[in-house]
Amino acid sequence: MRRFTLFGDLDKTISGMESGKMRNWTGALVINTIMDFYHKFAREVDANQKKFVERLRKAVAIPSISGQPERRADVLRMVQWTKMQMEELGAKVELCEIGKQTLSDGSGINLPPVLFGTLGNDKDKKTLLIYGHLDVQPAENLDGWNTEPFSLVEKDGKLFGRGSTDDKGPVVAWINALDTLRKCEIPIPVNIKFCFEAMEESGSLGLEEILKKKKDTFLNDINFTCISDSYWLGKNKPCISYGLRGLCYYFIEITGCKQDLHSGVFGGSIYEPMSDLIWVMSQLTDVDGNIMIAGIMDLVAPVTNEEKKLYEALDFDMEEYRADIGAIKLLSDSKEKILMNRWRYPTLSLHGIIGASSGEDAKTVIPGKVIGKFSIRLVPNMEPVKVDSLVMHHLNALWKIRGSPNRFEVKPLHSGVHWVSDFKDPHYQCAARAIRKVYGVEPDYIREGGSIPVTITFQELTRSSVLLLPIGSSDDMAHSQNEKINLINYMEGIKLLGAYILELCNL
Amino acid sequence: MRRFTLFGDLDKTISGMESGKMRNWTGALVINTIMDFYHKFAREVDANQKKFVERLRKAVAIPSISGQPERRADVLRMVQWTKMQMEELGAKVELCEIGKQTLSDGSGINLPPVLFGTLGNDKDKKTLLIYGHLDVQPAENLDGWNTEPFSLVEKDGKLFGRGSTDDKGPVVAWINALDTLRKCEIPIPVNIKFCFEAMEESGSLGLEEILKKKKDTFLNDINFTCISDSYWLGKNKPCISYGLRGLCYYFIEITGCKQDLHSGVFGGSIYEPMSDLIWVMSQLTDVDGNIMIAGIMDLVAPVTNEEKKLYEALDFDMEEYRADIGAIKLLSDSKEKILMNRWRYPTLSLHGIIGASSGEDAKTVIPGKVIGKFSIRLVPNMEPVKVDSLVMHHLNALWKIRGSPNRFEVKPLHSGVHWVSDFKDPHYQCAARAIRKVYGVEPDYIREGGSIPVTITFQELTRSSVLLLPIGSSDDMAHSQNEKINLINYMEGIKLLGAYILELCNL
Repeated sequence: MRRFTLFGDLDKTISGMESGKMRNWTGALVINTIMDFYHKFAREVDANQKKFVERLRKAVAIPSISGQPERRADVLRMVQWTKMQMEELGAKVELCEIGKQTLSDGSGINLPPVLFGTLGNDKDKKTLLIYGHLDVQPAENLDGWNTEPFSLVEKDGKLFGRGSTDDKGPVVAWINALDTLRKCEIPIPVNIKFCFEAMEESGSLGLEEILKKKKDTFLNDINFTCISDSYWLGKNKPCISYGLRGLCYYFIEITGCKQDLHSGVFGGSIYEPMSDLIWVMSQLTDVDGNIMIAGIMDLVAPVTNEEKKLYEALDFDMEEYRADIGAIKLLSDSKEKILMNRWRYPTLSLHGIIGASSGEDAKTVIPGKVIGKFSIRLVPNMEPVKVDSLVMHHLNALWKIRGSPNRFEVKPLHSGVHWVSDFKDPHYQCAARAIRKVYGVEPDYIREGGSIPVTITFQELTRSSVLLLPIGSSDDMAHSQNEKINLINYMEGIKLLGAYILELCNL
Repeated sequence: MRRFTLFGDLDKTISGMESGKMRNWTGALVINTIMDFYHKFAREVDANQKKFVERLRKAVAIPSISGQPERRADVLRMVQWTKMQMEELGAKVELCEIGKQTLSDGSGINLPPVLFGTLGNDKDKKTLLIYGHLDVQPAENLDGWNTEPFSLVEKDGKLFGRGSTDDKGPVVAWINALDTLRKCEIPIPVNIKFCFEAMEESGSLGLEEILKKKKDTFLNDINFTCISDSYWLGKNKPCISYGLRGLCYYFIEITGCKQDLHSGVFGGSIYEPMSDLIWVMSQLTDVDGNIMIAGIMDLVAPVTNEEKKLYEALDFDMEEYRADIGAIKLLSDSKEKILMNRWRYPTLSLHGIIGASSGEDAKTVIPGKVIGKFSIRLVPNMEPVKVDSLVMHHLNALWKIRGSPNRFEVKPLHSGVHWVSDFKDPHYQCAARAIRKVYGVEPDYIREGGSIPVTITFQELTRSSVLLLPIGSSDDMAHSQNEKINLINYMEGIKLLGAYILELCNL
């Protein structure tokens, strides 16, 4: 038996399993159960499948590639299109200019504005912030697409197109859900605010700054934030993401001479910086990926029994995962070990080298200065400052052992802390109930191995719970060729986002 | 006391130190000493300094950059200009088309023709082949030139301009020398053939093929070849190059998965190919550049006492060398050790990695497939096939030790044998006498650490002696910004090439 609060100016409560008294869109009072609301909503969603696919088709048709300055007009068009959709929902929308981007040739170009919107402004309701992004990764037929990337193509129950799952699908799903709630005259139990940016695929340029400026205005009344910009762990089971890893990125710079030298003419004269760098980089991990930097693993929070159980219960097909990435062999045969490696243990990856020869040619050069790039993913309780200190100590000790006369410098480039939320939080339980309603199963609680810095930004600025609620499948191929969202994931995703909004009445 | 043969149809000999009876340009008989010829020639060269600098200025003014297809018309213009210069000397010249070059976009562009020329066709004379190249490296003011690269600028006794030393200076010096011999009516003791290409800075595309085709025609009567396309060991002392190192180039390919992976999402799942490759590459040399591949050093011909003495006598300023390349410390304090390292010992250089992240960004990728590039410089008696076998054995053994499940493949890319000539050969002694005449010193006999494949091609196709006779200084900065030739090197270089031709009467 759960109690929940009625919303609106009535400020009354009634008890009863999944029933409520709410204000509808026109302000008239209706008494109904959430379940009834949900069923009505779900039927209406199903009835509008064609319309919703068409809406996504329009979004995908705009090649809003933020990484290509020549596409900036298309990015703006996508922002304007979304603004119109939201205004049709009745939202008040503001386009917020966030300055200029400096291109590699030194010229400047306007960043696309961030779209801030408000739907509902009832002081007695709590406020949900929805984040999404309107820009996409580049895509060319030539890259190996089987269909035209900017035409939504339905085939075998899949909707192919750039942005279909990352992140136009989820953004349009939010719009569809709100559109349907409104059409069904179902009262929305919370005020809704939106933050849709259009530079996410280019490092969210300008976003953090504008959010910080809006801390005491637009963001001052946010009670919970929901981001649908990630994926299920597998292909079949919905999940809720409650954690992200952080990151420390390092450059190791070794200089041997003032310019690149001909390896024939000069080979045998100098201590070659590449040889130094390669050796240093070889001393960071072992063949099994274990980090060889003393002290790093001591920072990691121990696994609790409760956590262990969570991993055991997860629906994760190891063989499917291995085959999808085309790996010959995974680092472990244990599902728990691989998932813990990805989510709750640090990993160190060697990314590459600046200044060495990287072309497919047989260049015979002794690079004069090389910079090795590597990063460490952070988990609780690894504080970046402590990690930096251990890394510096290890690298300096290695350099001493190496005994090369070359110039050696380690540059900690940037860092972002990990993010782990409490999946037992009532906000998360609203999402879990919504999942049970739509899919009839308990969700998996998962983490993501990557970093979504805006998650932490929202959590810090709003001082409230942030939830990652994915609707797409693990094989959607975001960023890659033949990106798609399954039609069923899209349609049930619309239902999930609607059901989640309805469930928020319980908070 | 040396005996030498009269040239021309007279077929007579007279004895006597540096004197000879020769046919002059007009066919009239003159009796003169080589010394007299040389003095007359040298005086005339000095008297024409202005004209010769102007001639070089015209050559430098043509931006014949072979590596830039849009400059192909300029390359052709340079070939035509040279053809005209040689026709004015009385040479018979042929432009030989050598087919097309395929550009990276798949389109085709005509290669510049190779210029073959003949000056003199006396069956009783021996024949000298002169090789040079008419194309240059790219150059832009923006790269850091202090002057306009395609305007010859004289400053502090230096002639700055792209191609001034590599290789337009030497080519124009040959023309100037022949022009002066002709003007002074000095008989040329040999038939002269020319091979001037215009794709040298782009891998001499098409040259080897056309030379092979001409083995039994144009190249069938060559008795010696001279190439002036290298540099002195230092700044003060002329030298003769009698050796080049060879090269074996290798790719180590390691594949871990079918595409690059996000290091956050997938870090901790797979055996990272970069980590494998970096470790393998770290096991090829030690900090002092010693090659750690068992058996390689056993292939190297031992140093003879005679050779040792040669190194001891060389004029080489270690501190100047170190400062010029901006190295913090050289691999050894011993001049002999450094020069032997560069010329007569193998060296292994790690050049770079294909497939890893090479940009100045902080990309967080796990490269799915990486290819490490390294090469070994070869010296006598390292046969490429034996080197390949030792390298493969070493790498395969390393891979076994590594124990990674990833896919590992070593690809021997290409190889070129070393070239070492006998500096006591009479042909070399002609050059040595010429150096004594012009500079009043004994030449240094040096090797080059790099490879000039055309050297070996000429030696093999003509089955006769090839000589490298540099005229520029070690600090001429070929390929780099502010390329120059010293005015004195240019003028005395003209004298050297003329004196060398005159000395060939002694063969």
